[in-house]
Amino acid sequence: MLDYPSLAALAAVLREGGFERAAAVLGVTPSAVSQRIRALEERVGATLVVRSQPPVPTEAGARLSAHMERVRLLEGELAADLPLLAGAEEGPATLRVAVTADSLGSWFLPAAARFSAATGTLLDLVLDGEDHTAARLRNGEVLAAVTADPAPVSGCRTRPLGALRYLATASPAFLARHFPQGVDAAALARAPVLRFDRKDGLQARWVEETFGHPLAAPTHWVPSTQGFLDASLAGLGWAMNPLPLVAAHLAAGRLAELIPGRPLDVPLHWQHARLGARLLEALTREVAAEARRSLVPPA
Amino acid sequence: MLDYPSLAALAAVLREGGFERAAAVLGVTPSAVSQRIRALEERVGATLVVRSQPPVPTEAGARLSAHMERVRLLEGELAADLPLLAGAEEGPATLRVAVTADSLGSWFLPAAARFSAATGTLLDLVLDGEDHTAARLRNGEVLAAVTADPAPVSGCRTRPLGALRYLATASPAFLARHFPQGVDAAALARAPVLRFDRKDGLQARWVEETFGHPLAAPTHWVPSTQGFLDASLAGLGWAMNPLPLVAAHLAAGRLAELIPGRPLDVPLHWQHARLGARLLEALTREVAAEARRSLVPPA
Repeated sequence: MLDYPSLAALAAVLREGGFERAAAVLGVTPSAVSQRIRALEERVGATLVVRSQPPVPTEAGARLSAHMERVRLLEGELAADLPLLAGAEEGPATLRVAVTADSLGSWFLPAAARFSAATGTLLDLVLDGEDHTAARLRNGEVLAAVTADPAPVSGCRTRPLGALRYLATASPAFLARHFPQGVDAAALARAPVLRFDRKDGLQARWVEETFGHPLAAPTHWVPSTQGFLDASLAGLGWAMNPLPLVAAHLAAGRLAELIPGRPLDVPLHWQHARLGARLLEALTREVAAEARRSLVPPA
Repeated sequence: MLDYPSLAALAAVLREGGFERAAAVLGVTPSAVSQRIRALEERVGATLVVRSQPPVPTEAGARLSAHMERVRLLEGELAADLPLLAGAEEGPATLRVAVTADSLGSWFLPAAARFSAATGTLLDLVLDGEDHTAARLRNGEVLAAVTADPAPVSGCRTRPLGALRYLATASPAFLARHFPQGVDAAALARAPVLRFDRKDGLQARWVEETFGHPLAAPTHWVPSTQGFLDASLAGLGWAMNPLPLVAAHLAAGRLAELIPGRPLDVPLHWQHARLGARLLEALTREVAAEARRSLVPPA
């Protein structure tokens, strides 16, 4: 059997981002934490943690730490059934979940808060880096993910959540300045557009689907969901913004659609480990309920 | 002399995140873009771009692309003086600026929008990754940065902007549930706290400075400035939130301070290349003006 106190030390160092903080959480000395991890490294025959600030796991370290977090999740459920067992020296379990930046910024958090209030579970939210999320799900580093990529991951269940609706929006002053004759190909080629990052093709996709030609326009890069909205409000450029974030601004006239009634829907999916853990099922229920409120139903 | 059409192709591929998009912006075929970059790589004797999706620069590629963006910035100023010169086949220059996530989320964008409206310059905002920003300033990859790290960077000028004020805040329901007897050491050890990422020590610093003991508490991880605020509003945990984001919520009673009148001020700095470029000076003026409005004056 694995040495669980050592595994707990490893998981705490990575979760807390430091040996001292891990020691404080575990109620032991930092040197005890170091010794446990060194012992584990000797047993495994590999470095588990790069001793940087903050410490970074090696592949083996990430795998072992993910295992520990899963075990603690299951232990947490056991403690609910057998309260006398709950020594809980380390406190509640932490569930790591990947979320797209736009979901985190527009609809996900109420579900997270309800789940956490009901179960006492802690959440470690990480931003969905499309490429990495599937790998992290596969090796158990995250137990669930809100993702725009429905590709099935082995050992995981995928369910459609509905679509996050985006609207092409800009400030009225921006529209008056850059589209005085209305929104057409020539004006779109000159009006500044926002992009989140190099992978963000939403604005180009909307132009292609609406006008049938590619978008090549002066571009501002703003790598933040709320920053995107703030930049649209401030008149820096036009952008595809999530409906839940712009509805009030549209109603108040602070933003307007480039072409009313031309949304772009991005289907989202909930992928989670087939762990059969009740906590994961409880989170799944809250996420699905919030998705029904905030997203467009799956086709 | 360097071959500038090739450099422009390289910079466009990296800026746009693809050969096809770069070709569209430059008004040439994708194969012409490829040929130019291959020619440049032969001349330099090194790979400049890793052909991934999106393309990623090698160190040499980043250095050359940064040089091209600087030259275009200076060209843009020349065109303002000598309008007949402005062939501007590639459109306006792009200025790459690093910004802390909390600054991008709370006060920076109005300055960016005013600067861009006045000069027509495009902005490529990148999030300040403390470790990398100094290196990126040094090699010219970013021309300016809002940073919490005042360490001087060679070739750069540093000026204090004032401090972003943070308040320890939570929802009234959260306070009633977790601090019924008031905020003390025992309650702080049990109440869930938010952290942005492993480097975020603000909550711990506030507890240390206020109570004189370290913070070890159940932690939710929420890697987004607005997500932090939303999670505070939803009652997931307490957190240090930037004053510009919480002022209205405090006034409306949706959030309350854990201990009224105990802010934590984080000094911010503006570092920019000593390029003598008027555009950079214009941006500096707008950033300084916005900082005077939104930040606490430097001591």
